[in-house]
Amino acid sequence: MTTFREQFREHIQTLQTKICKGLEEEDGKAKFVSDKWERPGGGGGDTRVISNGNIFEKGGVNTSIVHGDLTPQAAQQLNVNGKSFFACGLSLVIHPFNPFVPTVHANWRYFELYDQNGLPVDAWFGGGTDLTPYYLVEEDAIHFHSIQKKSCDRFGDSLYPKFKEQCDQYFINHHRGEERRGIGGIFFDHCREDDQHDLKFWKTFTETNGTVFLEGYLPIVSKRKQTLFTDKHKYWQEIRRGRYVEFNLIHDRGTLFGLKTNGRTESILMSLPPTVRFDYNYIPEQGSEEEKLINVLMKPKEWV
Amino acid sequence: MTTFREQFREHIQTLQTKICKGLEEEDGKAKFVSDKWERPGGGGGDTRVISNGNIFEKGGVNTSIVHGDLTPQAAQQLNVNGKSFFACGLSLVIHPFNPFVPTVHANWRYFELYDQNGLPVDAWFGGGTDLTPYYLVEEDAIHFHSIQKKSCDRFGDSLYPKFKEQCDQYFINHHRGEERRGIGGIFFDHCREDDQHDLKFWKTFTETNGTVFLEGYLPIVSKRKQTLFTDKHKYWQEIRRGRYVEFNLIHDRGTLFGLKTNGRTESILMSLPPTVRFDYNYIPEQGSEEEKLINVLMKPKEWV
Repeated sequence: MTTFREQFREHIQTLQTKICKGLEEEDGKAKFVSDKWERPGGGGGDTRVISNGNIFEKGGVNTSIVHGDLTPQAAQQLNVNGKSFFACGLSLVIHPFNPFVPTVHANWRYFELYDQNGLPVDAWFGGGTDLTPYYLVEEDAIHFHSIQKKSCDRFGDSLYPKFKEQCDQYFINHHRGEERRGIGGIFFDHCREDDQHDLKFWKTFTETNGTVFLEGYLPIVSKRKQTLFTDKHKYWQEIRRGRYVEFNLIHDRGTLFGLKTNGRTESILMSLPPTVRFDYNYIPEQGSEEEKLINVLMKPKEWV
Repeated sequence: MTTFREQFREHIQTLQTKICKGLEEEDGKAKFVSDKWERPGGGGGDTRVISNGNIFEKGGVNTSIVHGDLTPQAAQQLNVNGKSFFACGLSLVIHPFNPFVPTVHANWRYFELYDQNGLPVDAWFGGGTDLTPYYLVEEDAIHFHSIQKKSCDRFGDSLYPKFKEQCDQYFINHHRGEERRGIGGIFFDHCREDDQHDLKFWKTFTETNGTVFLEGYLPIVSKRKQTLFTDKHKYWQEIRRGRYVEFNLIHDRGTLFGLKTNGRTESILMSLPPTVRFDYNYIPEQGSEEEKLINVLMKPKEWV
């Protein structure tokens, strides 16, 4: 499995550079700034941040490759047994300025666990990609989900429906009557070797989903970046960004796990939107475009 | 103890009206709007919200009087045994527009627990008041803490130091190297009948802290509301408001308890600031006023 560690590390580092380049070219102004950091317990990361671009108001494309002893608290949160671990992943969140350009999030990760002799006892892949529009453009939702489906389908017909459903069930603000953070995508976790698939299958699956990321997102950015918007649209975007904050800080397992196990706070909270509003009891007008979005967030659709 | 229920309910309802009136008079423009709600499991509340005033950008002064069966989840979170409960409290958070006027938070509450025959098995008071400035004005910190101390001292010399310390230990963003949310005040909880004090002692103590609230806060508002400020000061306020959001959503027991036990979301999240910024790795300039604040948040001072 050590080979997988090396191969997946190399994959995410190459992918990080490729994704940053693709986003920079689309933006045409801002460049990613790299912040390399070390983890006291072992390993480190490369946090690449973009801000105040033509299109992208704030975003991060981060890799981390960490290893060390598994604290009892971390083992409990992950619900696993093991003495030490290796974890390697790429996490990205991009917040555009224009409310008609959706926010996107993706994460691809590999985890290995070892016993007290340092022998591997468990290994799994996880990840996914999901879209958070502020206004619903059906054509964009269809495009985004089509790419996610295509990325899954070469590995079997059952995977997209399963991981699309898991995504819809994961990104929920449970304190807001099951309102979703966005219109989903795919979400998969704990993809281990089993009767049907070996670990290499899940490695290739995870890498493939990373590889199609720009193809899923950039055409939408490109189509919507010129859309004119008013203060009213921006206001709504900032209200919705508030819900993004609520999800990430109250419910997101990755965020809470990171913060509670002394992860690098600034890299973890890079995901939070740049400007945000919290109004008391904000309710969109009946029949409005804003309400149309909420309806889909309350009841996810099959897009493809 | 039933008498305490009635008496404390009456106290917080009278106090709610008095505090709203005091804040409205200071603001001179905005009025509190009342939103009465019912809890499906029993009881309800009165959420009073102020927004877009001359001074107050957003604020809420809420009472709730709820009762019903204690879910296993709620019992676990509260770390108590009981079949049913009664809870009654006033919670307030005020976010001023001007970065030189501090945000304030207060809460006073009474809790009763009953066995399966409806007989009381436990009862306690809790609460406190704390201040969150964006710029440190020592004179204001001293005034605020003096009033908190005065409110404690008639009940014994040991209470202010103890509850001041508990406040400094409670409002911590643990994921940010023990940075406090603000400059504290007092925080007390689970104040039960014991060898030294009966429950009536804690009732009077809690009521007294509520009664001095305006005396602690309004003179500071009055002194700072005319202070001129620039975009730079406002920017910093919004960055600090981000930390307020982080504390409330990641660490605050009351907020998380409310959200996880199907409390009224809009009343609970009324506490979140109106406009907020999250920048990557924002660090104040060395020797600046902004850094001066951080220094006190990292290492709380004795103000009186």
